[in-house]
Amino acid sequence: MTQPTAAMLVIGDEILSGRTRDANAHLLAQRMTGLGIRLVEIRVIPDIRATIVASVRELSARVTYLFTSGGIGPTHDDITADAVAEAFGAPIGVRDDARAILEAYYKPGELNEARLRMARIPEGATLIDNPLSHAPGFVIGNCHVMAGVPSIFAVMLEGLAPRLVGGPPILSHSFRVMLPEGELAEPLGRVAAAHPDISIGCYPFFRLTAGATIILRGTDPGALARAADEMRAMLAARAPQIEETPPGAATEDAR
Amino acid sequence: MTQPTAAMLVIGDEILSGRTRDANAHLLAQRMTGLGIRLVEIRVIPDIRATIVASVRELSARVTYLFTSGGIGPTHDDITADAVAEAFGAPIGVRDDARAILEAYYKPGELNEARLRMARIPEGATLIDNPLSHAPGFVIGNCHVMAGVPSIFAVMLEGLAPRLVGGPPILSHSFRVMLPEGELAEPLGRVAAAHPDISIGCYPFFRLTAGATIILRGTDPGALARAADEMRAMLAARAPQIEETPPGAATEDAR
Repeated sequence: MTQPTAAMLVIGDEILSGRTRDANAHLLAQRMTGLGIRLVEIRVIPDIRATIVASVRELSARVTYLFTSGGIGPTHDDITADAVAEAFGAPIGVRDDARAILEAYYKPGELNEARLRMARIPEGATLIDNPLSHAPGFVIGNCHVMAGVPSIFAVMLEGLAPRLVGGPPILSHSFRVMLPEGELAEPLGRVAAAHPDISIGCYPFFRLTAGATIILRGTDPGALARAADEMRAMLAARAPQIEETPPGAATEDAR
Repeated sequence: MTQPTAAMLVIGDEILSGRTRDANAHLLAQRMTGLGIRLVEIRVIPDIRATIVASVRELSARVTYLFTSGGIGPTHDDITADAVAEAFGAPIGVRDDARAILEAYYKPGELNEARLRMARIPEGATLIDNPLSHAPGFVIGNCHVMAGVPSIFAVMLEGLAPRLVGGPPILSHSFRVMLPEGELAEPLGRVAAAHPDISIGCYPFFRLTAGATIILRGTDPGALARAADEMRAMLAARAPQIEETPPGAATEDAR
């Protein structure tokens, strides 16, 4: 079974200006790894229609699933829905199903013209549920258009996850040792060369003295365990102390 | 004076797998805004040589300054220097100036073959100082190759900053009001239309009740002030309370 792939398109001037630190790509990355979907690119672009259209076309042609965040609110700078419709050559307008969702949510008189913009959905797209602020996302082709506000992005992604077809989960096994990576590099390269089906990364950190975290990743539990056994033996001969995290939930490393 | 542009290439499987949340792009984004350089794209890609080569070629052709982070350490997965050399068609090998830096830093016998890989620098490149762990970054063409470890990336960027030629600083002026953006959208669109040289973004947040932050950005202080005056008057008629941040240091918004 081949691994499905994904790409993330973060749309927003506020990320590129440094005003906001994006949180959605990191959440998506963790979720994709859990689902056995390989995230191959994250791209952050400005709120420029031509750039959105070109990026959606390029990335959607290259991956199994494309996800976008940002630009689907009611204000003048929210142009993602129209740009994605253009990328897929789909007509777009206020759609009855989306309008009904907003009508049920807003009090009479509150659903003004600006808010109604959030019911602009391309023809043929299916809606993505938004239990938080109700304005829906949508899926057209392989492109999943979601909100930029992290709490809304997160609930949309949770709702979507059961619809995504993953591959074998990407397992990881990590070692943390208080040795500078410059001393580990040569034997580590040998273990890596002996296990070409396991991706092995080494991430240095600096506390009072230098250390390194080594991550082994692969989809075959047996191959991963064999690589880990060899790695453990290699490290035991060199490091006074080894912290080891066998396959399980991926955890964020604070570096 | 036209605004110089920048792009950031974050190289690393650990970001795409969700293990590590990238910190370097956000720092670069804030620094570029302060320098008057417009960051037009952030791209995160895996440790795959062909992908690095193609991305460096594409992005370096499109911007004034390209920055990369990650993949310049001593281990087998550190392939950035060689890939960037290939992208620029430059020969690469251990260079005497870089080797001398490492020789001065490491104790006799410590500078093994793996660590010597960190002295692989393309011909014609200039070195970027690394006062923390000494292995240098480098600049070739318009491409600035830096470390992935955030503390090292940060000191390299500080060292580089005086070499970068910025444009007029990008000023920003922000308003924070406790009004849902759906009620602001229409008058806000009118203020935006009246000030086409000022970029105006609206970023909703949700506390106990809905609110929005409105950011005005531009390089002309007078035009920015005029747009802000109009915005303030527009908001004063609608919002009970306005928090305002006039041009100054960009601050991160926690959302």
